[in-house]
Order: sequence, then structure tokens, then C-alpha cells
Amino acid sequence: MLIVGERINTSRKVKGEPVIESAVMNRDEQFIKDLARKQFEAGATYIDVNCGTLTSGEPEALEWLTQVVMDAVDAPISFDTPNPAALERALSVYDPAKGQPLINSITAESGRYEKILPFVLKYKAKVIALAMDDTGIQSDPEKRLAVARMLVNNLFTAGVPMDDIYVDPLTFPIGTGSDVAVTMLDIIEKLRNEYPNVHIIAGLSNISHGMPARKLLNQAMTVLCMGRGLDAGIIDPNDRYMMALIAATEALMGCDEFCMNYISYSREGAFEGL
Amino acid sequence: MLIVGERINTSRKVKGEPVIESAVMNRDEQFIKDLARKQFEAGATYIDVNCGTLTSGEPEALEWLTQVVMDAVDAPISFDTPNPAALERALSVYDPAKGQPLINSITAESGRYEKILPFVLKYKAKVIALAMDDTGIQSDPEKRLAVARMLVNNLFTAGVPMDDIYVDPLTFPIGTGSDVAVTMLDIIEKLRNEYPNVHIIAGLSNISHGMPARKLLNQAMTVLCMGRGLDAGIIDPNDRYMMALIAATEALMGCDEFCMNYISYSREGAFEGL
Repeated sequence: MLIVGERINTSRKVKGEPVIESAVMNRDEQFIKDLARKQFEAGATYIDVNCGTLTSGEPEALEWLTQVVMDAVDAPISFDTPNPAALERALSVYDPAKGQPLINSITAESGRYEKILPFVLKYKAKVIALAMDDTGIQSDPEKRLAVARMLVNNLFTAGVPMDDIYVDPLTFPIGTGSDVAVTMLDIIEKLRNEYPNVHIIAGLSNISHGMPARKLLNQAMTVLCMGRGLDAGIIDPNDRYMMALIAATEALMGCDEFCMNYISYSREGAFEGL
Repeated sequence: MLIVGERINTSRKVKGEPVIESAVMNRDEQFIKDLARKQFEAGATYIDVNCGTLTSGEPEALEWLTQVVMDAVDAPISFDTPNPAALERALSVYDPAKGQPLINSITAESGRYEKILPFVLKYKAKVIALAMDDTGIQSDPEKRLAVARMLVNNLFTAGVPMDDIYVDPLTFPIGTGSDVAVTMLDIIEKLRNEYPNVHIIAGLSNISHGMPARKLLNQAMTVLCMGRGLDAGIIDPNDRYMMALIAATEALMGCDEFCMNYISYSREGAFEGL
């Protein structure tokens, strides 16, 4: 499972306070480095950086975040912005020795696809393709699947290897309808069968928007999605229980031969107290 | 989700000690009542009683357990024995006002099917049908599925309503092979599609036999199985995290309209501290 650590995102609040946004606005290097390190040590493959809530100065802030995260950890970065100017600045200072960058994200919205694709090609980046177009997220599963297919096919035709494409089927929150999670699971299963070499990713906290005990829903949804072929997630790697369930699910789904990772995580104490 | 509370089982040990077995041998009423009540209060639909480790006196002990559990809680009982004599004695004292009894279990083993079926019919019991025959558990998924189908079809033909049949696809522990959980999931999905009205149950702790951090594997496997159509489980209802994940999964799988149960569990404090 590829884990994109989601915590460096200015829209995230802690006890109602926009602490990440404040840290970015105040250029609080230690705070950001600490967040990067904690996620890396907990098993994040990529560190996501997002400062999209800033009303001005996103490009400068994203460049700063990129530098700070590169100083803190030896992990590749996920550049989380629809803003080409911010992407340009951040990618131009990124050191590819940290690993292949991940662009989060491209969509089928008019303008966005054409503006983001050149960065994917120029920087040989991995890319998250959100299954949405100008109408937003299609509620009809077949239509949403058609958007996902079109994105995968177009990216592949443009020269992006399947192994660099991370398609996100997206979902509405479970509070909006009892069938939305099942719809997402069905889309994942179809994509997995149709494109065995593409990666399937999801921002797994969207499902629980507006609900109590969100972590539990996110955790259960992660396991359900992995059961259908999800192999990457945008999550909080410092949710120990989430990481433990992911390790258990990988063992169960046959992605961890002889359960060797699971057993060594256990020996290292990763599951203590859970 | 129908929850069969598994804790009153003489094979269970607590910190290596056979405390349940001792309680049964000493006829410790309070100990057993307490176990029954704790499970019932935590949401067990059925209270399972199993004293199969006793080298002698299983029929008397199962009758005693039945009386004690009936005294303790207003929940139906799951009679967990392959021993017709024990089943006979326990069922003969069971008060059907407690709810339809559950016979745990019938198999396709020669002798067992014929000996258990009359009890199912006489007591109009629900029954758990384990997908095994004289060769044990078939490792080939198609063969195991064939055993499950045969059991469901034979029980139905014998007059047991689909709604009273709980088929258990069984599994080998994950430590015996990376594909055993996936095999179980595939069998569940096929049974769910072929028999929309049959119930699918599993003893969800078998998967983790011999592994560290067993609870995590059991929890992840429960969610995975529910994602394919499992609607009943033989579990420890006092594992709060397991129960919370089941509630979350029911909401996600569309079995909890408007997430009303999930939201009320949350309001009642069921998820506190998780």
C-alpha cells in the first residue's frame, strides 16, 4: 500500500483551530518539519503538501513547504494543488533525488487537464487522476467510471506509464446516501479488473464528512476498498489503528507473503496497545 | 449483523488459563451469568454455549449452561456441539420464549448431518452449516463451494427455511497460505449471489490462528467479509473495537439507512475512546 501522508494541509484544523494554516503563514519551519517527520516515521511513502486555503501567495508558500519538507525527510513529495503557478514553483525547486514527485491531482475538468498534464510529463511525475469532470462528481456509477476510464486512457496515450497513474474514483459522503460507499467499491472493483496495472487511490476521509466518529468509518472504508483493489491511500499515517488495519488487510489480501511484514510490525511494537 | 457471542466456550483460555472450563466444571453460576450478561449488553444477538473440551459429562454440562444462561439474559442460545446427546439434553430444557434456538453446527460429514438434522426440524432451530465433509475443509474453492451448496440445498429440501440457514464457508488460518482469506472472500461472494436469502456466517477468529496481534486480523477480516456479503459472525462482542467497526461497515454497506444506528451508537458513547 502506498501511503500519502495528508497532514500538511492548511484546510486541516485541530480542535477547530487552523494550526497548519497559521504555521504556513508564519513560516514555522519546525512545526512543518515535525509533521513531515512524524508521518515519515509512521510509514508515509509520500508527504503531501497543500496550502490551498491561502487567499494569496499559494505559489510562494508551496515552494517554501517543499523546501522545508525536503530538509526534514528523505521522502518524495505529493504536490496537492490545482494551481499551475504553485505547481510550477514547487516542482522547480524539488530535488528528484528525493524520489519521483506525485502530482495531486489532474481531473477531466476543462482547462485543468491541459494545464496539469505538461507538469506530469516534464517532471516524469506520478499523478492522481480524480474521476470528475465539469459536472463535478457523477453520481451515476457508469458515468463516473467513464470519466475514470477516459482519464486513464488519455494519460496513458499522452505517455504516462500505467504504473505512474493513480486513479481516484471519488465518493460522496455516506451521510448523503446509503449507497455511495457501495458505488465506490463497485467502481474500484471494475477499474481493478479493467486496468490491472493502474494504481487505485482514494482520499479515505471524504466518506465520513459530517458524521460522528469519523475515524471508524474511514478505517472500515479503507479495509473495504482494499478488499476490492485499492492499493494507495491519502490518509493520516499517525492514526496507528488505521496503519495497523492496513497491515492486517495487506496480509489477508495476499499482498504480504507469509505475513512477513505483519509479523515484523508486530515484533517492532507497532500494534502495542491496540 | 447477527452477532453470536463466543465467550462461553471451555476451549477459550484467559492468559493461558482454562478459566471457562474451570467455571463449568465447578458449576460456577455467577461466572457464567456474568459472561452471558456482558455479551448481551454489548450487543450479542445469540449467546453461544460450548463445553466440548470436557472429557466426560458434556450433556449434563451443556444442560446446566443452558439453564444458567436462560436465567441470566433474555437472549436466544446457540448450542455449540457436534454431540447429539448433549444437544438433546440442552434443547429439551430450552425455553423457546427466549427466541428461536441456533444449532451450531451441522456439516456434510457422514453421520453428523443425519444425526443433527432431526434436532433442527424438531426444534424449528436456525442452523449453522459448516462447509466441510469427510475430507475436512476442501482447500480447492470450487470443491468447498460445492459442499456449501449441497448443505444449503439439502437443508432447504428437508424443510429448513433459507432464512434459518447460516452457511459458514470456513477458512484455514492466514499463516498457512497467502491466498486463504481471498479464497474465503470469493466463496462468500459467490454464495451471496447464488443464495440471496441464505445467511452467511463465520467464526472470524480462525483466520488469525497462530499469528501475533490476532484481534487486528480478525477485525480486518470481518470488515472484508462483510464487504462481500457476510451478515452474521461468531465473535467476542466485548471487543469494542470489533463491534464499532461492524457498525461502521454496516453503515457503509448500505445496511443502516441514514446511518441511524451508527449515529445513535455514537451518541450512546459506544465509540468513546476508540
